Amino acid sequence: MYTYKRTVHYHETDKMGITHHSNYVKWMEEARLSLLDSIGLSFRNMEDEGIMSPVVSIDVNYKSPSTYSDIIEIDITIGKYTGAQIIFDYNMRNTSTGNVSAVATSRHCFIKDGQVCSLSHAAPNYDKMLRDIIEEVKTLH
Amino acid sequence: MYTYKRTVHYHETDKMGITHHSNYVKWMEEARLSLLDSIGLSFRNMEDEGIMSPVVSIDVNYKSPSTYSDIIEIDITIGKYTGAQIIFDYNMRNTSTGNVSAVATSRHCFIKDGQVCSLSHAAPNYDKMLRDIIEEVKTLH
Amino acid sequence: MYTYKRTVHYHETDKMGITHHSNYVKWMEEARLSLLDSIGLSFRNMEDEGIMSPVVSIDVNYKSPSTYSDIIEIDITIGKYTGAQIIFDYNMRNTSTGNVSAVATSRHCFIKDGQVCSLSHAAPNYDKMLRDIIEEVKTLH
Amino acid sequence: MYTYKRTVHYHETDKMGITHHSNYVKWMEEARLSLLDSIGLSFRNMEDEGIMSPVVSIDVNYKSPSTYSDIIEIDITIGKYTGAQIIFDYNMRNTSTGNVSAVATSRHCFIKDGQVCSLSHAAPNYDKMLRDIIEEVKTLH
Repeated sequence: MYTYKRTVHYHETDKMGITHHSNYVKWMEEARLSLLDSIGLSFRNMEDEGIMSPVVSIDVNYKSPSTYSDIIEIDITIGKYTGAQIIFDYNMRNTSTGNVSAVATSRHCFIKDGQVCSLSHAAPNYDKMLRDIIEEVKTLH
Repeated sequence: MYTYKRTVHYHETDKMGITHHSNYVKWMEEARLSLLDSIGLSFRNMEDEGIMSPVVSIDVNYKSPSTYSDIIEIDITIGKYTGAQIIFDYNMRNTSTGNVSAVATSRHCFIKDGQVCSLSHAAPNYDKMLRDIIEEVKTLH
Repeated sequence: MYTYKRTVHYHETDKMGITHHSNYVKWMEEARLSLLDSIGLSFRNMEDEGIMSPVVSIDVNYKSPSTYSDIIEIDITIGKYTGAQIIFDYNMRNTSTGNVSAVATSRHCFIKDGQVCSLSHAAPNYDKMLRDIIEEVKTLH
Repeated sequence: MYTYKRTVHYHETDKMGITHHSNYVKWMEEARLSLLDSIGLSFRNMEDEGIMSPVVSIDVNYKSPSTYSDIIEIDITIGKYTGAQIIFDYNMRNTSTGNVSAVATSRHCFIKDGQVCSLSHAAPNYDKMLRDIIEEVKTLH
């Protein structure tokens, strides 16, 4: 498990006085790319090598609101990785209130030269990084 | 069924060259409030009367990308309305490519004076507007 | 003069209850690209031909707030065009209150193959479109 | 002088491959509120006490682009404070390239109960915090 931490910005609130719900989707991306960076898988390098990983689906369950200056901790895990697709699970806690703010999932595929591909063929080095971290987490439990 | 139409803005794209996926969540809100406006249910008036309708959950399935200057048509319907909760279904078509761009659902509750409430009690007039439009759509089919 | 019209979206408001000031910068871009489109200069085509037009500077004077569901009309004119740079002037009126919401300016250069360029050399066709519309507006006054 | 540091998020880029220019305006707000927090002036508390500080004007000069994963350091200083208005100056450096990314200024007023006010009358405690930090910086030079 990896934890990504960030503060809610003023510009992320709406006239209801709380964080606009679309921002949690942005935070999921931040947490995801930060997790990948932490295992040495730089999304920027991957894109420079012509591999993209667009979002296939998201679902977000909003549990309790957050607002400007609240500190959010996002626990993120790789739920599943098949080479062709990767699923991330997110648990977003508002440490300023002690409540879970949102629980979410995102699914992603891989694209090389405009074609859907398997990362295990398109980039065995990145594939190995993902399999290694999944194995490592399993071993810990 | 109600259709909300809008053009993809340049500032909504990302370095992948396509619309950033978080924007579809914003478009869903735009379509939703536009639908409500069209049946005389002004979200602005509702909020002025102290009733808020936060998002409980969303799920979005991304089918094909869109990009700057593409025209998106969002068909939106009320999937379910119980007084306490309302579910909207979205079908987002990219008319510039002819493809479905995304299919999505959002669920919302109602809050008055900081408490979860049923719209049928808190605001019978808005409740009636919603029941009338659902009945009208049913009759058409 | 060209007028770009749009409604303030809910997701553009902040916890002060008004439109977040960063959105006016996005609206300026929308108005600008819409004006260019209206004279046949498609920014999308221009980028496909390898010419980009980044923002060099902006200044925005906020006169009165706007909020969700307000209708904004942006009068936009080309303040100056030299081939190497183009300046746009914006007058943003909140038609829902009758007040001027913001007055702004933006300056842009042109880039081809990563190098600052003059549009008159890099793309004489687009250069002509801009000179024609400026001439036409002058003649009208 | 206070320095605010942050990484460019993927969702802040546009199809030009660089940070969308509207985000620098958001970063200015983040840096500003972070500076105020650092001197004990919590914007959140201030708003809870009914005092708001809307943006009167901004100007931003874009010097060189930034993109996803670049680290931006924003040096921010209080350029002027009169009680009625406050001006902040920003120098945004892209530490990943070594270049200045943008130089900017923002001007703000204060509002209490919907009326423009002087902070020295409306909130002498916040006024003192601002005067103290300005004096302290002067003494250092």
